[in-house]
Amino acid sequence: MSRCVEIYEVGPRDGLQNEKRRIPVEDKVALIDHLGRAGFRHIEVASFVSPKWIPQMADSGEVMKRIARVEGVAYAALTPNMRGLESAISAQADEVAVFGSASEGFSKANINSSVDESLKRFSPVVAAAVDAGMSVRGYVSCVVSCPYEGPVEPKQVARIAERLYQMGCREISLGDTTGRALPENIAKMLDAVAERVPVDQLAGHYHDTTGRALENVEVSLEKGVRVFDAAAGGLGGCPYAPGASGNVATEAVNDRLTALGYETGLNRDVIAKAALMARAMRA
Amino acid sequence: MSRCVEIYEVGPRDGLQNEKRRIPVEDKVALIDHLGRAGFRHIEVASFVSPKWIPQMADSGEVMKRIARVEGVAYAALTPNMRGLESAISAQADEVAVFGSASEGFSKANINSSVDESLKRFSPVVAAAVDAGMSVRGYVSCVVSCPYEGPVEPKQVARIAERLYQMGCREISLGDTTGRALPENIAKMLDAVAERVPVDQLAGHYHDTTGRALENVEVSLEKGVRVFDAAAGGLGGCPYAPGASGNVATEAVNDRLTALGYETGLNRDVIAKAALMARAMRA
Repeated sequence: MSRCVEIYEVGPRDGLQNEKRRIPVEDKVALIDHLGRAGFRHIEVASFVSPKWIPQMADSGEVMKRIARVEGVAYAALTPNMRGLESAISAQADEVAVFGSASEGFSKANINSSVDESLKRFSPVVAAAVDAGMSVRGYVSCVVSCPYEGPVEPKQVARIAERLYQMGCREISLGDTTGRALPENIAKMLDAVAERVPVDQLAGHYHDTTGRALENVEVSLEKGVRVFDAAAGGLGGCPYAPGASGNVATEAVNDRLTALGYETGLNRDVIAKAALMARAMRA
Repeated sequence: MSRCVEIYEVGPRDGLQNEKRRIPVEDKVALIDHLGRAGFRHIEVASFVSPKWIPQMADSGEVMKRIARVEGVAYAALTPNMRGLESAISAQADEVAVFGSASEGFSKANINSSVDESLKRFSPVVAAAVDAGMSVRGYVSCVVSCPYEGPVEPKQVARIAERLYQMGCREISLGDTTGRALPENIAKMLDAVAERVPVDQLAGHYHDTTGRALENVEVSLEKGVRVFDAAAGGLGGCPYAPGASGNVATEAVNDRLTALGYETGLNRDVIAKAALMARAMRA
């Protein structure tokens, strides 16, 4: 099995959007520009959602305009609908992402529509993004449990992942939104999903609420997953998942992967500094 | 930029199909099983084409049945049409590939149809493969020159790559079929293609006919490409490209990448042994 693992940096988007404090554009740009030197292949930097819902991301266009692009780094943005996609295209995003949920309750709370409605809305967005020559990522949230509905069935996760894959997402990121997953839950969920989507097109997106994120990374590695989302400094959480703490920290995932003999291609000093910068932005 | 690079092993298919000698199933299986221990993520092992055209691959189903699957390795097969795809599904291939050409003359000689006809035929194959939960790869041959028509325009390569991408290929492999490309040709071609397809979904597939394949790998690395096709022992060539010698050798690409500070995740001893095994199969 390959020893190369990608850490997909989501801090500037998934991390910062959950901070209550309004973070100045120049601070976001400084963090992204610093992260650009770390060796990441993808950095999620923006979210073109309605500022009514997520005011923290209203400056996404401005942020993308000001960053210094590093060759070889793809800058990604969330795009829930065609309007968001148009903004992402104007902002020259390299990759866009749509975000579905494996739980009806969370879908309603997070994006105000049923799971099927959201998938129907994403389908033309994904097709148009692919037509525009962009990469598309699909997120599935609540892959093990939902803050409103409790445990989520692995086959339900597989069903949503498969639909995102079939509509043209090149990678499906599986989110333990509540951060309550145990390694055995993750293993069962991955077994179900891998029957529908090639395992090398899956990513693990784990929160560290109960301190199990690194173990969940390990069990995912055994199942063949080689991409993990993480946020510098462990920023994040989710405004619609009460009690969920932040994304697993990039520096922690990197250290664990390195200790296990995997190669991430990241510069440890650069990401350590990024963690400090990210933490300093916290309220 | 990431220091992790994938070598996509194509020897058991692209290499062996061009050997004149009939290679016993057990020798192919032994090579594939050995390669499974090297650390590859993908090994192309079979081609479900008509045995009328490529008799060397008539045993593809048998080969795939007998190999010992290694967890974390995706076994890939070429599938030019729906019938090929059905065979690949029965054989439990993890990934399939369709193969287009940037040159009309080569398309006619290699797959007996015009470029547009071939793309039309691939479209339902790709859709059905994605529906079946498989990964799909698209090859573009003659990305710099054609043995029949001479130089090929970068924008023509971009057009074919884009169509394969839009139909659902997760990765587009760009083949210098004649092995005559210079690094500056590869750079121009990649610039054109990267405008249409995300660079992290491109692979370089270079032949070493004129000894420039490793330089072509280097210039591709600078452009952000992180996947390269290669064949253990440098086996191969192409029956429809007169004078073209083999694929660039896996062991040579691995050594060059390692010397440049890239991480391939491959075991050097295992691939050295694979090269010996592959070369011993030559007539």
